Formats: sequence, C-alpha cells, structure tokens
Amino acid sequence: MAAPHKLCMIPGPVEFHEDVLAAMASPALSHIAPSFIDCFGRVLENLRHVLLTKSAQPFVVAGSGTLGWDLAVANLIEKGDKALVHNTGVFGDRMGDCLATYGAEVSHVRAPPGHRPSLQEIEQALTADGPFRMITITHVDTSTGVLTDIQAVAEVVRRVSPDTLILVDGVCSVAAEPIRMDDWGIDVVTSAGQKALGTPPGLAVVLASERAMRVFNSRKTPVAAYFASWNRWLPIMQSYEKRTPSYFGTPPVQLIMAMDASLKLILSHGMEKIFAEHAAASDHVKQVLEGWGLKLVPQSREAAAHAMTAVYYPEGVAASALLSSAAAHNVVLAGGLHPTIAAKYFRIGHMGITVYEPQRKYIETTLDALKKALVESGYQLPSQ
Amino acid sequence: MAAPHKLCMIPGPVEFHEDVLAAMASPALSHIAPSFIDCFGRVLENLRHVLLTKSAQPFVVAGSGTLGWDLAVANLIEKGDKALVHNTGVFGDRMGDCLATYGAEVSHVRAPPGHRPSLQEIEQALTADGPFRMITITHVDTSTGVLTDIQAVAEVVRRVSPDTLILVDGVCSVAAEPIRMDDWGIDVVTSAGQKALGTPPGLAVVLASERAMRVFNSRKTPVAAYFASWNRWLPIMQSYEKRTPSYFGTPPVQLIMAMDASLKLILSHGMEKIFAEHAAASDHVKQVLEGWGLKLVPQSREAAAHAMTAVYYPEGVAASALLSSAAAHNVVLAGGLHPTIAAKYFRIGHMGITVYEPQRKYIETTLDALKKALVESGYQLPSQ
Repeated sequence: MAAPHKLCMIPGPVEFHEDVLAAMASPALSHIAPSFIDCFGRVLENLRHVLLTKSAQPFVVAGSGTLGWDLAVANLIEKGDKALVHNTGVFGDRMGDCLATYGAEVSHVRAPPGHRPSLQEIEQALTADGPFRMITITHVDTSTGVLTDIQAVAEVVRRVSPDTLILVDGVCSVAAEPIRMDDWGIDVVTSAGQKALGTPPGLAVVLASERAMRVFNSRKTPVAAYFASWNRWLPIMQSYEKRTPSYFGTPPVQLIMAMDASLKLILSHGMEKIFAEHAAASDHVKQVLEGWGLKLVPQSREAAAHAMTAVYYPEGVAASALLSSAAAHNVVLAGGLHPTIAAKYFRIGHMGITVYEPQRKYIETTLDALKKALVESGYQLPSQ
Repeated sequence: MAAPHKLCMIPGPVEFHEDVLAAMASPALSHIAPSFIDCFGRVLENLRHVLLTKSAQPFVVAGSGTLGWDLAVANLIEKGDKALVHNTGVFGDRMGDCLATYGAEVSHVRAPPGHRPSLQEIEQALTADGPFRMITITHVDTSTGVLTDIQAVAEVVRRVSPDTLILVDGVCSVAAEPIRMDDWGIDVVTSAGQKALGTPPGLAVVLASERAMRVFNSRKTPVAAYFASWNRWLPIMQSYEKRTPSYFGTPPVQLIMAMDASLKLILSHGMEKIFAEHAAASDHVKQVLEGWGLKLVPQSREAAAHAMTAVYYPEGVAASALLSSAAAHNVVLAGGLHPTIAAKYFRIGHMGITVYEPQRKYIETTLDALKKALVESGYQLPSQ
C-alpha cells in the first residue's frame, strides 16, 4: 500500500492542482500537433499577463530555474561588461558565478543573512563603480526568505544609471509578488515553473523587455553558450506564438500543458487578487509563528517574502527533530540553505493553490502540524 | 468530449507506458525526499545498464536532448581544439555549430542525405587534418533515419587517433540500437528521454567515460557555460547515486520518476532482447513498405535506423494529403526534416513500448492507417 501523501510545504516544488497533474499525464503528443502549438502559444501570451507586460518577449525552455539565468545572462553579457549583484543570499552569490562565467566583471552589494542592501548602498555602487551593463536582483532569495523592493531599486537604477539593464531573478516571486515589468522598467525576469507558477519542476521561464532585446541585437560578440542562445529560441517562441510549427529542441510537451493549466487557474483569479491573497496568507503565517515566539530570518516584515517564510528554530529545539516530527504529521518543511546559518532555521512555502484555494486548508494543516511538532520537540508555546 | 487519442508514431516523442504517465502525475514531492533520492540514484545506475558500461558517469538534467550536447561539448572542448563531425544530416550540422560555439575548429566529413561517410573517408580526415580532441557521431540522424556503425568508426578512431574522444549523439538510438560503451571505447553518449527511453520530453541524458572525465579534469581553461558545467552537476549526480541529498538546480522530479518507471520496464526485458526486438520490428516495417513499392531514404538496409523509418513519398502522392489522411485514421506520422529533401519523404517512429510490447499492435495499426492513407492519396499498391 502506498504511503499517504505528505503535503509538500517547502519553497518549491509546491502542491499542484489536479488539472495540472492531469495535464502531466497526457499521452504522447507531437510537439508540432496543432493542439500543442496552440497550448504553447497561449502559455507565452499568458506569461505576459502574469508579469504585467505588453511587450516583453517570453522564453519557455526545458530546464531548471538556473538555466533561466543562462538564458538571460549569456545573451546580454559580453566579456568585460560590468555587472552588479544586489545580493541577499545564496542565489546572489550564484548569480555572480553565472555572470563571471560569461565574462562579466562582477561587483556585489551584500547584506548579512536576513538583511538587504539599502538604496543608498545601491546608488553608491552604481555611481562609484559603474557604468554597469546589468544589475541583477534576487526578488526573493529562497535561501533567506528576504524580499527586495524591486520597484524602489529599479527607480534608483533608472535615475542614476539609466542604461543599466535590470534583471530580476523571480524564481520564488513570479505569480506571488507583484512584478510590473512595464511600469517599473524591469528588463528581464527569470523564473521556473515549480514555485508560484504551480507546475512540476523542469521549465525555465524568461521574459525580456524590448530594451533587452535591442541590447541583445546590438551585441558585438557571439553568444558564448549554444543551448541558451536566444538565436536558437527566439524564432521558436515567435513561431509558437504565431501558431506555426517550428523546431530547435523538442519542447517538454507535458510540462508545458501543465503550465498552461496552471496559468489558466491563476489568471482566472486575476493577478491583483493573486498578489493580495499571497500577502494575506503570508501575514497570517508570520503572525501565528511570531505569536508562538518564533523569530523570522528576514530583518523585518517589510523585507520578508510572501510566498515563503524563513524562521529560526526556537532555542533548544533540534532541527532534525522538528522537521521529522512535522513530516510524521504529514507535512514536509524545508531546512535552512544559507551556509552561515543553515542549521539555525527552517522554511515553509505558501504559494499557488495553497493560497488561492484556501478551501484546501493547506496552511491550517501546516500550522497544526508545526505546532504539534514544536510541542513534541520540547518547545513550550507561550500561553495566549 | 475529448477527441480520441491519435497514436504518436513519430521519431519522438513516442507513445508512453501507463506506468510512466502515472509517474508523471505524481503529486508534489521534495527533490530531497528520501524516496526521490532513491529513485534518482536508481535512474543513474540503470542508465549504465542501458549503455552497457560499468564505469561511465551519468548526468540527468532538465533540458531537451540538445542541452545534452552542451553538457558534453562545453566540458570537453577548449578554445582552439580541433573537432571532427561525422555528418549524416541536420544534427551533424547542428553539432558543428555547438562545437564552434565552445571554440572548436570544426571539420565535417559529410555524406549526401541518406548516405554515410565511408570508413576510409573518416580515416583520411583523422590522419590528414588532426590531431582531433573529439570526433562526434550522430548514431541515428533523426532527419534522415541513417544509422552509423559506431563500433566500426570507433575502431578506426582508436587505431589511427587513439587520443581523440568519441562522442556519440544517441538521442534516437539509446535503448534501441546496441551501444556497448565500455567494449567499443565510446567516451560520451548524449541522449534524451522522449525516444526509446520512453519518457515524456524534458530530460537531457549524458554518460561520460572515465577517460572523458580525466580530460575534463585536466582542462586548462574554465568551462565556458554556467548551467551546463560538470563542475555544478558532478557532485549532485554523485550525491544522488550515494543516496544523499544535494542541490544545485531543482531536478524535474516527476520526469525523473517517469524515467525510472520506463527504465525498469526496459531492463525487465534485458537489453539484448530490446535490441533484437527493435531490429525485428524495423525489418518488418521496412519490408512491408518496400513491398508496397516505397523507397527508403537511407542508402541501404544496413545504413537504416531500427527505431524509425524514413521513406520517400511515392510519385504523385502529396505530402500533406498522406499525413492528413493517416492522422484521420488516428495515426500521427512526421514529415521530412532534412532541408534538401524535406518535402519528399516522411518518417515513422517505432521504438519503446511500440516494439517491446507488441500486444499493443501499434505497428500493425500504423501500417494499416498508412496503407489506407496511401490508397486515399491515389497511390496504387502493387498487387501481391
């Protein structure tokens, strides 16, 4: 007999809707079947609605979210370009490695775990060390749960260094936190399917502004990667959106059908409602945890992501005991990821259907399991 | 009401087993859940059994088969290395582009569509233009259905240029044609899930010999791609195989579970039986088509793939009419792909469960539909 399903309440992969899983099990279909061409074209169009952009060029390619970085950086960076990393954790460090691989001279503006650089620090770095071809911002660093105010950072960049491309790593924010690509002047958003986009892992997602495409088109040197080159994928994406067959690599048919199902659900709620519901669910989770005397990893509520919560273990509670106990109550949580504090905190994902279909009661189930696990781990909850 | 499923008899994606589709619909599971770690480890081990190697290092990464090329070439080629492409079609041309992207000086030994270079031509190129860091061989060029005798080519390479790495693009051959990596001295095999490996598209597969890993470890320059670098993935693959958690990019959990299901089915038959059954099914298809007066694209039966058949339309039969008519009989076939003859031929895929579960009668159903489509397209079958 199969073991009962444990709720997967980590910051991705997340619980998937039944329509999404049904699409995953679709029988074989040619990647140039008219029904699939239409599906892929719709996914590309719908991603523009999710990112609140009329003109950005979407790319959806088989790969993990990290491939999305290559799909942006390899196309926009040329050897010797300066790049600035707005660094709030592990994924900022890694983005620096990615930029350096493609020849960038990389500077970081770092903050300690849980914190984020100030706007003054960003402005100073942009003016003192520039001009930069690109600034990268991890919208939500999944390692620390820190949320960056990308609108405010983008305003600074546009004011003091107007030609610098703004790349947002939205792996843990797209379809949960507002990203108004056109209004805020964001040039590139990279993401992946398995977080708030509600699709099993295996899809890299990139949207590139018209300005980013112009920078790409005026490159002086060839793109240094083969698979990640927009020269291969741009004609393919344009063809699918025009509903005509085209081929470079075989697209992951079932995953794209699954993303189509998920995007339809998300857009049926409307993006403003989706954002508001993620904020409300996050506030609820954080309020309950703080009520239990737990301390968030992010420096403040304002700096905390809405699709996940990173929270310190209480004094005296062993990491492994707490997570095992929660799993025994059929809820899977994630340990820490930031190397300097990894053993001291854990992470809860709350995004997608968990949030916009509250009738599932995944958040209540999770908080109940966590409460039992805390008690079983010897923690005394404050009396209320 | 949903339209009835049309058999997907193209050279990938292919029809999938029910166990594989059930795995695709698995609910959310953490990429570091013990059950998934065990599954991923088993997939890596089982790929060695499929490729008949004891010591090669497997890599399984979210991506299309083309990413598999980057996962090999970016790691083994350094700027200025010479590379030789054994070119039997579209995928040889593309491999040349991939090699050049990573700095190789590329030579091709080409043959016209349907043909393959002779061993003498290969030997001459190796001795006249070398030494080559790498030779690449498309085992089956999906564009033409031409099969290369990789054992014979490998013997030539080992004899006249023993230090040249041998890379086999096995996208359309792995788990259908024999590839005896260890016995034949093949250094790298690249593949993808959606052909004879029987998994929906979205997985790039690479196996690298110990010699290839030594060449990688003695690189003088950094790997020029970020996502495709073995520096990122080698520790991850080693961890999963040791059944310990590890993270670089989120693996495509459901696709890997699907590949696990498919590999179990394949290995339950045994590789020698799998190879023999693909050969027998292919012989049957080709004999029937030739009996109907159709002409194969490959120059001879010996040079024809066993997982697919590329065959010219008979005189006077319009491409679109024939494929539409077959689809009306619920069988999807593929058009031509090689640009110089694309409108003149079509392709049938026959691999995986179509072959090793003959009780499904997919081949009979396909031949029946094709026969009806030929007649409906105005072709007069020879009386028999």
